[in-house]
Amino acid sequence: MYFHDKRLQYPVRVETPDPLFARQLQQAIGGVEGEIRVCLQYFFQAWGNRSPNPKYRDMLLHTATEEIGHIEMLATAVALNLEEAPLSLQESAAEANPVVSAVMGGERPRHVVEGMLQRHLLSSGLAAMPVNSDGVPFDCSHIYASGNLAGDMFANVAAEATGRVLATRLYNAAHDPGMKDMLSFLIARDTMHQQQWLAVIEETGGSAALPIPNSFDQSLEKQEFSYVFMGTDVNNVAPPEGRFNTGPSLDGKGQFSTIQSMPMGEVPVLGPARPASGAQAEQIGAAGVTKR
Amino acid sequence: MYFHDKRLQYPVRVETPDPLFARQLQQAIGGVEGEIRVCLQYFFQAWGNRSPNPKYRDMLLHTATEEIGHIEMLATAVALNLEEAPLSLQESAAEANPVVSAVMGGERPRHVVEGMLQRHLLSSGLAAMPVNSDGVPFDCSHIYASGNLAGDMFANVAAEATGRVLATRLYNAAHDPGMKDMLSFLIARDTMHQQQWLAVIEETGGSAALPIPNSFDQSLEKQEFSYVFMGTDVNNVAPPEGRFNTGPSLDGKGQFSTIQSMPMGEVPVLGPARPASGAQAEQIGAAGVTKR
Amino acid sequence: MYFHDKRLQYPVRVETPDPLFARQLQQAIGGVEGEIRVCLQYFFQAWGNRSPNPKYRDMLLHTATEEIGHIEMLATAVALNLEEAPLSLQESAAEANPVVSAVMGGERPRHVVEGMLQRHLLSSGLAAMPVNSDGVPFDCSHIYASGNLAGDMFANVAAEATGRVLATRLYNAAHDPGMKDMLSFLIARDTMHQQQWLAVIEETGGSAALPIPNSFDQSLEKQEFSYVFMGTDVNNVAPPEGRFNTGPSLDGKGQFSTIQSMPMGEVPVLGPARPASGAQAEQIGAAGVTKR
Amino acid sequence: MYFHDKRLQYPVRVETPDPLFARQLQQAIGGVEGEIRVCLQYFFQAWGNRSPNPKYRDMLLHTATEEIGHIEMLATAVALNLEEAPLSLQESAAEANPVVSAVMGGERPRHVVEGMLQRHLLSSGLAAMPVNSDGVPFDCSHIYASGNLAGDMFANVAAEATGRVLATRLYNAAHDPGMKDMLSFLIARDTMHQQQWLAVIEETGGSAALPIPNSFDQSLEKQEFSYVFMGTDVNNVAPPEGRFNTGPSLDGKGQFSTIQSMPMGEVPVLGPARPASGAQAEQIGAAGVTKR
Amino acid sequence: MYFHDKRLQYPVRVETPDPLFARQLQQAIGGVEGEIRVCLQYFFQAWGNRSPNPKYRDMLLHTATEEIGHIEMLATAVALNLEEAPLSLQESAAEANPVVSAVMGGERPRHVVEGMLQRHLLSSGLAAMPVNSDGVPFDCSHIYASGNLAGDMFANVAAEATGRVLATRLYNAAHDPGMKDMLSFLIARDTMHQQQWLAVIEETGGSAALPIPNSFDQSLEKQEFSYVFMGTDVNNVAPPEGRFNTGPSLDGKGQFSTIQSMPMGEVPVLGPARPASGAQAEQIGAAGVTKR
Amino acid sequence: MYFHDKRLQYPVRVETPDPLFARQLQQAIGGVEGEIRVCLQYFFQAWGNRSPNPKYRDMLLHTATEEIGHIEMLATAVALNLEEAPLSLQESAAEANPVVSAVMGGERPRHVVEGMLQRHLLSSGLAAMPVNSDGVPFDCSHIYASGNLAGDMFANVAAEATGRVLATRLYNAAHDPGMKDMLSFLIARDTMHQQQWLAVIEETGGSAALPIPNSFDQSLEKQEFSYVFMGTDVNNVAPPEGRFNTGPSLDGKGQFSTIQSMPMGEVPVLGPARPASGAQAEQIGAAGVTKR
Repeated sequence: MYFHDKRLQYPVRVETPDPLFARQLQQAIGGVEGEIRVCLQYFFQAWGNRSPNPKYRDMLLHTATEEIGHIEMLATAVALNLEEAPLSLQESAAEANPVVSAVMGGERPRHVVEGMLQRHLLSSGLAAMPVNSDGVPFDCSHIYASGNLAGDMFANVAAEATGRVLATRLYNAAHDPGMKDMLSFLIARDTMHQQQWLAVIEETGGSAALPIPNSFDQSLEKQEFSYVFMGTDVNNVAPPEGRFNTGPSLDGKGQFSTIQSMPMGEVPVLGPARPASGAQAEQIGAAGVTKR
Repeated sequence: MYFHDKRLQYPVRVETPDPLFARQLQQAIGGVEGEIRVCLQYFFQAWGNRSPNPKYRDMLLHTATEEIGHIEMLATAVALNLEEAPLSLQESAAEANPVVSAVMGGERPRHVVEGMLQRHLLSSGLAAMPVNSDGVPFDCSHIYASGNLAGDMFANVAAEATGRVLATRLYNAAHDPGMKDMLSFLIARDTMHQQQWLAVIEETGGSAALPIPNSFDQSLEKQEFSYVFMGTDVNNVAPPEGRFNTGPSLDGKGQFSTIQSMPMGEVPVLGPARPASGAQAEQIGAAGVTKR
Repeated sequence: MYFHDKRLQYPVRVETPDPLFARQLQQAIGGVEGEIRVCLQYFFQAWGNRSPNPKYRDMLLHTATEEIGHIEMLATAVALNLEEAPLSLQESAAEANPVVSAVMGGERPRHVVEGMLQRHLLSSGLAAMPVNSDGVPFDCSHIYASGNLAGDMFANVAAEATGRVLATRLYNAAHDPGMKDMLSFLIARDTMHQQQWLAVIEETGGSAALPIPNSFDQSLEKQEFSYVFMGTDVNNVAPPEGRFNTGPSLDGKGQFSTIQSMPMGEVPVLGPARPASGAQAEQIGAAGVTKR
Repeated sequence: MYFHDKRLQYPVRVETPDPLFARQLQQAIGGVEGEIRVCLQYFFQAWGNRSPNPKYRDMLLHTATEEIGHIEMLATAVALNLEEAPLSLQESAAEANPVVSAVMGGERPRHVVEGMLQRHLLSSGLAAMPVNSDGVPFDCSHIYASGNLAGDMFANVAAEATGRVLATRLYNAAHDPGMKDMLSFLIARDTMHQQQWLAVIEETGGSAALPIPNSFDQSLEKQEFSYVFMGTDVNNVAPPEGRFNTGPSLDGKGQFSTIQSMPMGEVPVLGPARPASGAQAEQIGAAGVTKR
Repeated sequence: MYFHDKRLQYPVRVETPDPLFARQLQQAIGGVEGEIRVCLQYFFQAWGNRSPNPKYRDMLLHTATEEIGHIEMLATAVALNLEEAPLSLQESAAEANPVVSAVMGGERPRHVVEGMLQRHLLSSGLAAMPVNSDGVPFDCSHIYASGNLAGDMFANVAAEATGRVLATRLYNAAHDPGMKDMLSFLIARDTMHQQQWLAVIEETGGSAALPIPNSFDQSLEKQEFSYVFMGTDVNNVAPPEGRFNTGPSLDGKGQFSTIQSMPMGEVPVLGPARPASGAQAEQIGAAGVTKR
Repeated sequence: MYFHDKRLQYPVRVETPDPLFARQLQQAIGGVEGEIRVCLQYFFQAWGNRSPNPKYRDMLLHTATEEIGHIEMLATAVALNLEEAPLSLQESAAEANPVVSAVMGGERPRHVVEGMLQRHLLSSGLAAMPVNSDGVPFDCSHIYASGNLAGDMFANVAAEATGRVLATRLYNAAHDPGMKDMLSFLIARDTMHQQQWLAVIEETGGSAALPIPNSFDQSLEKQEFSYVFMGTDVNNVAPPEGRFNTGPSLDGKGQFSTIQSMPMGEVPVLGPARPASGAQAEQIGAAGVTKR
């Protein structure tokens, strides 16, 4: 179960509110590379963890819980960046006040609104929403929790890698020192989390534990295709050479090689459509045509 | 650009059609661990690849193209498993033919229909659809192509890891020798693809190239938090010990340590709601209340 | 604006309630071939119709309004089919009453529940929902209203064609005489609606009005590719011959022919990744690597 | 920021695992009436709360944090109900062990699988997922946080009302004493949460604070239509009489009355399609037709 | 069944077309606070209404039917606001005509396009679509119809409250007198509809009918938790005092109190992963490891 | 199975990169009128084609394969249009370089960013994504493959009609000669594909093969309603006259006529809510009320 402290994990301050940056920050909240995703992903991995050893369940709970605080920081940052957003499309004496103009770099309110997520104005009352920077709501099909620990750890590394790529892009786009400071903290945490999941992979066997899942008897797979790079160039041009098709495989269980793809199967033949299946008579054959 | 051969990459045959297995196979077509996902993911990574070196673009095109053939094999397998599916809910002399009964293990047609994806009967005419095993359509937000090569490679390993986990689960659920044979081929290809993306990671620096992205100057992140495991246990119980919080970090740039999380920020304070922002008068303060 | 009559457009009665058939009927409500789709599609086409002539706007309003009544009929049919559905998974004296057993063909309640849409029990209180037969909610991206009258008419024919295919499949699956009667009415209306949209196409020029849109000056398109079937067989096997690649084109503006596809473009070259774009240093080139 | 305790808020135990009940419980996790929804809804309302008075922000944080623990309890319950689920579709000596048979009430494994969410077997490794009981992932468009406190409180009452309706349906469907005990706790909490949000409505003015938002000057609305029930019966049959169209309005600002709807506007006239807008030539008029 | 009148319920006119306002109006059509939602919500509540008394079914039909006309008004308003939208991104003599410039406040066409929903130009031919103001299609999971009348009434109040909040925000953003007039009508109707659903709640028992559903025997819930506010502050700081945790409960069945949350359950223990379940060998234990 | 050539089907070049046009092009990739849709639609129609005659399966494979190359061309065009996009919101010496300014027509970087899809900057590293021009991901529910050949052909014509409408809109919006050249090729291919699917309809019987499906015995439908236009005008105003309600039907099987819609059914009566179904006591009747 869970507890809260009203204070933030790390300070969030905005000197110059910018509704366009508020929009960009949404990607780190409700984007597929964002914090709702990693938070729920680590929670569902913990809650469904099956193992004789509770170690990773425990560890996942610590980090999942930390991530709620990251969503909170970003949601706060979005709201602070929306403080001065124009509520009307029409320039007027009231709207064109010097504060707004200074804040937004002298833009007319209409221009500021054009770059905003419209729902920041219309749906949330100038606050964060669980959507990405183009307004698409987060959907939980992105919570990867496969029941396989190693597969999940790679999914977590991928999530933190794209998460840190996003955070550095936001850092580069940002101009507010408070926002740069907040992002420098989140980037550091993404560094740690990348390391953390890779450390679990190392600890549970690293390359030698591949392929995932390692509980499937490899003698049951068609092993002649297990370490072969298949080229599909129509002119039979060889694929580029690289570590991925030369030398021993990384799991130490095979040698990489390269072949040109060729059909091993036949042209597939499905049965004709059946009489009551809603097809055209021609698809059914004699019976279907007779019916007309 | 692209070309086709009408034959399949590998043989697909079904001795005993089973509509419930057709449903399960849909996960490997339209599930997030499925083949549409990896196919489009590798294509978008190739098409958007920015690098002075075209090597990985080329390589991705070979494998993306191979994956179209895997969707085709699975779509064929679904259709073949649906050959004898009952079209009516009502048992009748015609329906209760001995072939159906033998095929379905003596089930009444109604029972067979209960376990089916209803849209196999109603929407596709007994053929595959781009949906998962519970009928949810694939949506392309799952195509991860971040513009960062290393991040994308980890996403690809994750995709092939969960893909192979799925394929082995289908193998274990299957009873038809043709289906087991087809899956043993797809499992082997997943083995190779896991290796292949890991080989790219090794080739481009491995752990030493971390954290991702390696083009961001790490002196700009709050480095005091870059290699620290943060515990969130309410009773201050220490997190479990593991490689993820002891010893040197995997990128060789720090030492793992552990601290208990504590708030470093303050209670966030947002401005009150503004007069024309659709809030309740109480949220706006004096001005809002006056307005009533 | 709109008015209602509490009575149904056509009688809906169910003699033998069947929760599995209730599930199948959902496809005709919330499926992409269903009635919510055509209803809203015709409304949005009418409301956005731009033309000097209001004729088709008027006509679309008549039919869109009729379709609300079809959703109503189907929603009623779903609710009636759910009248006797078991509310518990556990067989008990109360549950195993003779009425239920007779209704459901002697099934145990648990079996009946297995074949149901779970949300019929859990979310709607034994009533229809705007979802398809596998429980996926209808989403309005399926409302096709392109602003081009001819394009929209073809979209409408397609909707009514797949709609009538679905309705006949439901007819074939049904066993209740009331349900067969209701469906025989809806099938007839789908017949009319197919005819109706095709009549508009004929009335506005038929094949001679092609290609759509006919307001684009065809001399601006690369006309050497406008009537050519492009083969993509890797072995250069000729495509099958048919009306689609022989004889005059249907719009009377060209002659069909066939060629084998060949690349006319070059290998695409994108610029390298830029320094602040979140890529790996290797993708950026000299500048990126220096930065590390 | 947030903290956790590894223990559950309330005990979760399952005596007789039932994969079909695991499926039904998913509605309370990832359904729109479920716990992910209320948890994130209360968090986003708290994080975006704008008011001179922090009271409701604080209060929302307490309850949002409690709700994480409810998701955790339900996720645990799903996993426990899946403990004995069959992994193969084929009955075999191994599979048909007496334990399974006893557990599942003597069902053949195939039947048990038919009633399951397939992704419990194929995607999650016998654990909970953030999806509803028909497998549709939760999507965050259901997080209502409008920036208007009173509007949000009504949304919260609605969420807890449908949540408690769902919980009682699950209670009625359940047969396991552990599950009934867990649900009796969650039902009690839903009782409290309904009361809690209604208490905020009362505390901030109750009916007198209507209509929402109360910060909009009602003299700006067309007040002749503010308390009028509009009938749309085509035969001009009067609507049923009730509190909703007789007596003083609940906000004390008007008297309810009833009128028959009549068009007050004209037939809408849109401009014709413009020459470069992709319409058919007929829609454009003279210019468009000339162009052909 | 249903009927139409070609005229609008209330006049819709636009003096100064504004494509950015067209975009904002989309929220009232296809947003979750919009008119498609309430229209379909009231229809599905009516069509699925189960009760010995048909009164509320009848009443719901009247209002659902009215709402179709509101979608129609808004769709008309969107199309009228798009009349002069630029079709090209490039300024040219033709495009930079004085009418456009005057209409759009002297903006260059490119700027006007930047603020538009791109699909207004590309997909709909300058007409409304069933999407929200950021282009996300409406999805019918938002149609709340639970089968519980009181729960549905609260959902309806919530929908009309957020709907009126949205309408007042649009009123505040608007500058066109025709648009302000149209919105003043819709705001008045939202006032009525809020009242109307609250009147049903009052008429069916009001607070005394709580908790919802009132057909569940409260002695079956853990009543010691039914009226208790649970604090989750990590430092055991008491929650703020308010009506929600002091005094008698609103249903008159209990007294509010406050406690600090404490775990009552244990650390959950799931069984280990099973041999054929796709987990890593380490998760399975002895058997899994042996298998390698 | 499939093969590739690294070169593009047709040249793609961009002289003046424009991030706003990159956004618009996304509609042709991930929009419902776009190329991912037709590509996958033709593939699924081919892979699921049931017919004694393999001709159309073969033909569909050729065209589906061609379409992959169209996605590739458009993805390349998007990336090239994003080459110079600003990465920061803040104008600076570096950013305000003359190249950018010339390219973007002298705009400030902030303005350019306002018109962009934010995820082009934040998620893809300046490359194409499988989303539409407003950032909504493509979802595969739009892959129409009904199992009925004629229905599918109409769906294909509709897809290519709306596809060509979109392509001509993009042509009209474009200002870059390279983009206009690429679009002139794609428009020509859309011309051919419209013709191609219509040719199949002609070849398989044209109007005489209607209604779809033609394998359903028309004597089973209520034929008195099969060729009747039903008016729903509340004032009984006759619908406009047209080919759709006068003369012989297009399938030659009936005569069009017109009637005014009238209810043929009764007011529907559902059973009351059942005791354990989560309804309010009033909905259940005596039993429910007693229970309280």
